[in-house]
Amino acid sequence: MSLNEFDIIQQYFSKITTPRNDVMTGIGDDCALLVPEPGKILAVSTDTLVAGRHFLADVDPASLGHKCLAVNLSDLAAMGAEPCWVSLALTLPDVDENWLKKFTRGFAQLAEKHGLQLVGGDTTRGPLTITITVHGQVEADAALTRSGARSGDLICVTGKLGEAALVLKKLLDGDAVDEDARLALERPQPRVATGVALKGLATACIDISDGLLADLGHICSASKLKAELEKVAVPGSEATLNHEILLDFALTGGDDYELCFTVPEKFKDRLPEIAQQTEVSISVIGRMTEGQGIEIFDENGTRMDMPEQQGYMHFS
Amino acid sequence: MSLNEFDIIQQYFSKITTPRNDVMTGIGDDCALLVPEPGKILAVSTDTLVAGRHFLADVDPASLGHKCLAVNLSDLAAMGAEPCWVSLALTLPDVDENWLKKFTRGFAQLAEKHGLQLVGGDTTRGPLTITITVHGQVEADAALTRSGARSGDLICVTGKLGEAALVLKKLLDGDAVDEDARLALERPQPRVATGVALKGLATACIDISDGLLADLGHICSASKLKAELEKVAVPGSEATLNHEILLDFALTGGDDYELCFTVPEKFKDRLPEIAQQTEVSISVIGRMTEGQGIEIFDENGTRMDMPEQQGYMHFS
Repeated sequence: MSLNEFDIIQQYFSKITTPRNDVMTGIGDDCALLVPEPGKILAVSTDTLVAGRHFLADVDPASLGHKCLAVNLSDLAAMGAEPCWVSLALTLPDVDENWLKKFTRGFAQLAEKHGLQLVGGDTTRGPLTITITVHGQVEADAALTRSGARSGDLICVTGKLGEAALVLKKLLDGDAVDEDARLALERPQPRVATGVALKGLATACIDISDGLLADLGHICSASKLKAELEKVAVPGSEATLNHEILLDFALTGGDDYELCFTVPEKFKDRLPEIAQQTEVSISVIGRMTEGQGIEIFDENGTRMDMPEQQGYMHFS
Repeated sequence: MSLNEFDIIQQYFSKITTPRNDVMTGIGDDCALLVPEPGKILAVSTDTLVAGRHFLADVDPASLGHKCLAVNLSDLAAMGAEPCWVSLALTLPDVDENWLKKFTRGFAQLAEKHGLQLVGGDTTRGPLTITITVHGQVEADAALTRSGARSGDLICVTGKLGEAALVLKKLLDGDAVDEDARLALERPQPRVATGVALKGLATACIDISDGLLADLGHICSASKLKAELEKVAVPGSEATLNHEILLDFALTGGDDYELCFTVPEKFKDRLPEIAQQTEVSISVIGRMTEGQGIEIFDENGTRMDMPEQQGYMHFS
């Protein structure tokens, strides 16, 4: 069975997400027409996932639909923005209706959860590539950026780190991986509610997509400060903590999609409440100080050697 | 020489377009932060171009940079929106600095011309694919859509049609093509100023990317009306008019990126002024009537057979 471009859009994409009142025109004209909320600014992010590079070729299509949206929502979370609208550009080698059905379901379930409407996109034939652009909104003076950290601020992360990278290694090595562990890699949960709750408290924020050291490094350089981390405070998953050497996964593994943020010490007591409300753990892992770069200290207060690879680089 | 992702963004993309006052944060954080103009709505469009499908593999990179932005700006033009911000997702098989320099120049020159700032994107390794998302703004009650045509409205097009499709055929056939003709295919000029000038006059508008009949067909179905065209009024290029059979290129050829729009007859006298101001010809080619579909009449008023292929379908 062969479907043309318009059939695909019609059948699979035009009705997959709940309509929002602020969408005047969604799919079906030259542009989407969207009504911004007065007094708010737009947060916009674009990410591309390429088959064989960002996901394994045999990945479950529903997980892929989830993940390609999750990585974009994670960028909105890092700004404290509320998700609104999304465009999906899908390049497909052929029209596999079974694949499209599953992909759409994974995408739509996550979109629904975050009140996001699909408002446009493009379907083309070619090597499997997915580019998503998400739009969120946030009060102009409340957006969380990378550059606002101050000396003395506490460094915090949500969730547990390194699980996704460890699972990926096991899969690539042909080792057995249980379903729950696989979800950490294939169905990351963007920390949207936590990002929104951190507005007015966090001084800087980033999502951990390339590994803690690489991403915290961006906060350091944007804020012109140094980060001092306590090794034992870094929340690795159980699997990583069971193997000392695997702490590296928590420090340098990509694909976590947790938030790393800085808060003034006076707000420390608010963190447990935010963790509980937004259903994710929050760990204090260090402190920002004058200087540059990142230093890690062990339980005796001795400065450790840094792992060689500090994060995932697409073109390195 | 090998460049990593951040070097590429830094060296080639972070400074290629003039800064706008409404960009709080551009490239370099998790999201771009953009300030919408009070009282306006957003027009957003996404298009993907895939190597070997939407452009020839040996195309001049500067022309490619121009064209991938032009096709997106053409969608804004069709809504009467003013261009503001753009995201560029670039998937590259390898890092060829010479290619990147040229591509960036073609992209930046067109962006500058339309006051567009590059505010984000993603660079990944993989088969050459380009996805662009453009953002424009327009007054809420003035956006041109496909659905507003009324019975009796005149049907108009800008420029000359069919040239791009004819040049593509010649290139594929290995025939000689002069530089000026090649520009019609490789450097289409999006009719942004014309689209903006048509606000308040045009009742419906679309850009011609898939061929006149296919795109006018969208106005017909969205407006629930029929289009009656006069064959002799369709502005083919000289090359197409010299060959009777090549009128098909003007009717069904893709890649024109001219505007097709409808206006009430009372505004007919305003068209020459708009054509002159925005430096493009405007031709009246027919009239909207009750009914559905499209009919074409020859110089004797006889209804003609329709061309078999009515437009470019990516998945047909």
